[in-house]
Amino acid sequence: MKNFVEPIEKLTNEFTRLPGVGRKTANRYAYKIINMNSQDVQSFVNAILDAKQKVHFCDICGNFTDTEICSICQKGNHKIICVVSEPKDILALEKVRDFTGVYHVLHGVLNPLEGKGPDEIRIKELLQRISKYQVSEVIMATSPTVEGEATAMYIAKLLKPLGVKVTRIAQGVSLGTDLEYVDEVTLTRAISDRKEI
Amino acid sequence: MKNFVEPIEKLTNEFTRLPGVGRKTANRYAYKIINMNSQDVQSFVNAILDAKQKVHFCDICGNFTDTEICSICQKGNHKIICVVSEPKDILALEKVRDFTGVYHVLHGVLNPLEGKGPDEIRIKELLQRISKYQVSEVIMATSPTVEGEATAMYIAKLLKPLGVKVTRIAQGVSLGTDLEYVDEVTLTRAISDRKEI
Repeated sequence: MKNFVEPIEKLTNEFTRLPGVGRKTANRYAYKIINMNSQDVQSFVNAILDAKQKVHFCDICGNFTDTEICSICQKGNHKIICVVSEPKDILALEKVRDFTGVYHVLHGVLNPLEGKGPDEIRIKELLQRISKYQVSEVIMATSPTVEGEATAMYIAKLLKPLGVKVTRIAQGVSLGTDLEYVDEVTLTRAISDRKEI
Repeated sequence: MKNFVEPIEKLTNEFTRLPGVGRKTANRYAYKIINMNSQDVQSFVNAILDAKQKVHFCDICGNFTDTEICSICQKGNHKIICVVSEPKDILALEKVRDFTGVYHVLHGVLNPLEGKGPDEIRIKELLQRISKYQVSEVIMATSPTVEGEATAMYIAKLLKPLGVKVTRIAQGVSLGTDLEYVDEVTLTRAISDRKEI
């Protein structure tokens, strides 16, 4: 399905960059944009540019923020750190109301096949936080995939000699799923059933 | 699921304007934008602005185009007009290789409940084309929904006194579906089996 109008074709191609968007969906999005009034298109574009310009990583945890330190790090208990692979995982975990600690975003998991070693994810920064804030517990909340498990085990081994309690979210989260899509009840149980590793 | 970072929240809201996009999907899109490099974001934004600025309606058929007259009207046979409700329907019909005529986009269908009468869709423009180009046949290719059928019948009644042959795409297209999603074989049969109304 090819468009005959070049600007529509180009916009369709751009929309296919978004996750899970194929050509047909991208085309519908492009048509929607053209049907929007100019003011709405401008505010759409401004939102994109604004998000790209203003949002950066929190100096402490690596989550997205538009302030120097993110809102969770500003008020959370820095003695309990929950380690996740991506910012989107924090969004899912924040539904668990009884967690009052802070997060640490690795920005990836260990994946030797893709050349992702310990230096490619934010492990060094985690170690620095542990000595700086006298952290008492680190909860490993990487997704329960092969790579997520391996990353949790690797970091646990690094932290054990430092005298830090390292826990893993319980296997209430079913194997092989992406953390982003786990329901809140399962996540709440996974947090409360966490076990030392 | 609320974001704590205002620019992400705003961008997420903007993405929910796109057809079929809920909050979770919109959020994934927003995260993807932030993860793209600045150059890619700029070309994304340029594509949106370009499409909005350069694309307008073809003076003849009402389809989207970035030239004065669309590419189909430039080379098609203006004696056979295929009438559709939206530009996206042309994209579907253009897969039917043996149609050499041109199109006419109504930009809607008759819908009394929503206040869409004959003056709100491009019927007047269709009548003008018929006298100007000595049209021999008008194929009514509105979607086979209640409103689409009613619109086809209404226009057929208007055109009959002018001596124009008016046909309707055959009921190979199953009732109640949106034209955009009909497969090519069904569409090809619908075109070849068209019958006078």
